[in-house]
Amino acid sequence: MNWGERITEKLSLIRTKKPLIHNITNFVVMNSTANTILSVGASPVMSHSIDEVEEMVQFAGALLLNIGTLTREWVEAMIAAGSTANAKGIPVILDPVGAGATRLRTEASRSILERVDCAVVRGNGAEVLSLAGESSNIRGVDSLQDAEEAEEAAKKLARELSTVLAITGKTDVVTDGNRLFKIRNGHKMMTCVTGTGCASTAVIGCFLAVEPDALYASVEGLAYFGMAGERAAEISEGPGTFQVSLYDVLYSIETERILSLIKVAGK
Amino acid sequence: MNWGERITEKLSLIRTKKPLIHNITNFVVMNSTANTILSVGASPVMSHSIDEVEEMVQFAGALLLNIGTLTREWVEAMIAAGSTANAKGIPVILDPVGAGATRLRTEASRSILERVDCAVVRGNGAEVLSLAGESSNIRGVDSLQDAEEAEEAAKKLARELSTVLAITGKTDVVTDGNRLFKIRNGHKMMTCVTGTGCASTAVIGCFLAVEPDALYASVEGLAYFGMAGERAAEISEGPGTFQVSLYDVLYSIETERILSLIKVAGK
Amino acid sequence: MNWGERITEKLSLIRTKKPLIHNITNFVVMNSTANTILSVGASPVMSHSIDEVEEMVQFAGALLLNIGTLTREWVEAMIAAGSTANAKGIPVILDPVGAGATRLRTEASRSILERVDCAVVRGNGAEVLSLAGESSNIRGVDSLQDAEEAEEAAKKLARELSTVLAITGKTDVVTDGNRLFKIRNGHKMMTCVTGTGCASTAVIGCFLAVEPDALYASVEGLAYFGMAGERAAEISEGPGTFQVSLYDVLYSIETERILSLIKVAGK
Repeated sequence: MNWGERITEKLSLIRTKKPLIHNITNFVVMNSTANTILSVGASPVMSHSIDEVEEMVQFAGALLLNIGTLTREWVEAMIAAGSTANAKGIPVILDPVGAGATRLRTEASRSILERVDCAVVRGNGAEVLSLAGESSNIRGVDSLQDAEEAEEAAKKLARELSTVLAITGKTDVVTDGNRLFKIRNGHKMMTCVTGTGCASTAVIGCFLAVEPDALYASVEGLAYFGMAGERAAEISEGPGTFQVSLYDVLYSIETERILSLIKVAGK
Repeated sequence: MNWGERITEKLSLIRTKKPLIHNITNFVVMNSTANTILSVGASPVMSHSIDEVEEMVQFAGALLLNIGTLTREWVEAMIAAGSTANAKGIPVILDPVGAGATRLRTEASRSILERVDCAVVRGNGAEVLSLAGESSNIRGVDSLQDAEEAEEAAKKLARELSTVLAITGKTDVVTDGNRLFKIRNGHKMMTCVTGTGCASTAVIGCFLAVEPDALYASVEGLAYFGMAGERAAEISEGPGTFQVSLYDVLYSIETERILSLIKVAGK
Repeated sequence: MNWGERITEKLSLIRTKKPLIHNITNFVVMNSTANTILSVGASPVMSHSIDEVEEMVQFAGALLLNIGTLTREWVEAMIAAGSTANAKGIPVILDPVGAGATRLRTEASRSILERVDCAVVRGNGAEVLSLAGESSNIRGVDSLQDAEEAEEAAKKLARELSTVLAITGKTDVVTDGNRLFKIRNGHKMMTCVTGTGCASTAVIGCFLAVEPDALYASVEGLAYFGMAGERAAEISEGPGTFQVSLYDVLYSIETERILSLIKVAGK
């Protein structure tokens, strides 16, 4: 089975099972992330109160932790939800938005990684380098380094943490420390809309809920999202219509496109 | 005067008076709810601080309380705003998002209903059943039960609380415990965009500000919103363009459509 | 160099330098503000935690403080970020959303203005009048007074605070207390979408990051945003498509339009 067939099969599973994706995520992207998840075919819930996250996560197919617009109290809720998810065997995906930009974010990411087993960590090049304890170049939440610059650090970090690192950029890099895949789908218009990085994490989350291999779920999610971005760019006039079209395309991308235009390399 | 004429008349009143709709609502839908209210023709304000809600609500035509992404502190602000609204004769509408899914949400909904006289409670089937103390089937914020399954519980609860229950689903059910109406407008694409349930509550809120009968305001709001959804689905390609078209249609739906395509039954 | 040429030059600078715009802003518009800033060509970051704002702002080209959906704790973070920005020579722009509507908002605005040197204050007529200590007419966050009614109060306040007042309305008024400009670009559809006032503040913020004269940055930002609104209205069907088109147009407005359709008067 090639990557295109695999994605087609998993998409069909997502749409049949409609897994609940529990998100503790930032204020900027709550709405767009929920709509991304709905367009893919899963069912989003946003819930961050320490008084309910452990209860809410029990029904989830995946838990997404995203540290954008973070305050200290949220870290506690993320760790509580993550611990429950771990105990229940529910996969957790971490998006360390802005790690490396401020101590709060770098420390929160590390603290979550110490206390929660994350199946996948999805970030940009600078975020992943900062988590690996290497010097990184980030301004706000925008990496000034490409995913491929973080390749070696990611392999090492993946082995240390027993997690999959999914690094997005012009070329996406996915590794579990041994295997490594590169995805060359995507479109530069994706950098002109806020929250597309967070949305890519959410798409991986949807695949994680139906795909037992977290490395595969990451490749499938990023390739699918990248192909949707390419198609949306073809039918839009700028960042506004691009974002709107992206939901339309995620909802009804042609199987033929998935089978023929996917660009994954690696082993 | 039939339902179509009634809606046309009330819409015209909303657009002339532009009532302020005060929302204490969840982070996911703050933007989309504000845009829904603007598209209908009223004026939204979002304000949740305990330090200002009592002052802000005084100028409102309706107060909307929505418990999605709830934390405990917000319940206090909702009760404070609701009490002031009650004292001033401003109608209150409650959206118990996710009641039944977690104790926090179920208890918060009940606590608000005990302390605030709500003119309308708008929820899905599972949420309303959970408020009625019956067993419900909810996953995250998505009801696994249809509105019509909650019909009897809703009638009983409406009488107990002296409120109108507006239950949305494939068929919407509206009752004050005595009278009961069913609305068969709407489109399944509405379930592919986040926040349409919350938006339907907001549309009812707009009608509540100009319609003294809360039962009628609920029927009018849901029928109007459902017809707008049907029209938006005709002119869109997927969930992205659907959401965008929905605002366009709410803003300028043809009177002819309202008069001819409305599907309300009941007495 | 006329205003059209000046805007064209500054836009080009924004797109080359991609300055970071640090926003401490309200929940309703976080997503739309980030997308506005991206469409103009700068790089947004949203961060409000007292534990990181001083660190985050150091890399910013401008700091935007917006008091919509305010709670008391956020004021402290705004003042901390603003003080650091002042120390570093980074321009600060304040959007006093709803000043005059509640004591919390009026007092927060004044407290920020006392403790932070703001290069620009952007508000509607009623907000500016309330900051000037004059009686104002506001309902929720909508001014019931036009920008030109606040003209004299704005000139006085600008001199007192050594800031630029940018008042938006049918006609926008910009003054530093001595010079005064009026901008007649814009379209009434801008009032049918939430957060366009906040977006206009963000556009000025982008220009502030590359234009040393805050008075000029305000005129340039408001004229550019107004022209984009005019163009978006031409190609849209209602408030939904208008908002989407506005991002497209901000991203790729024709230079010819900027040079020929700008409507700025004053000295």
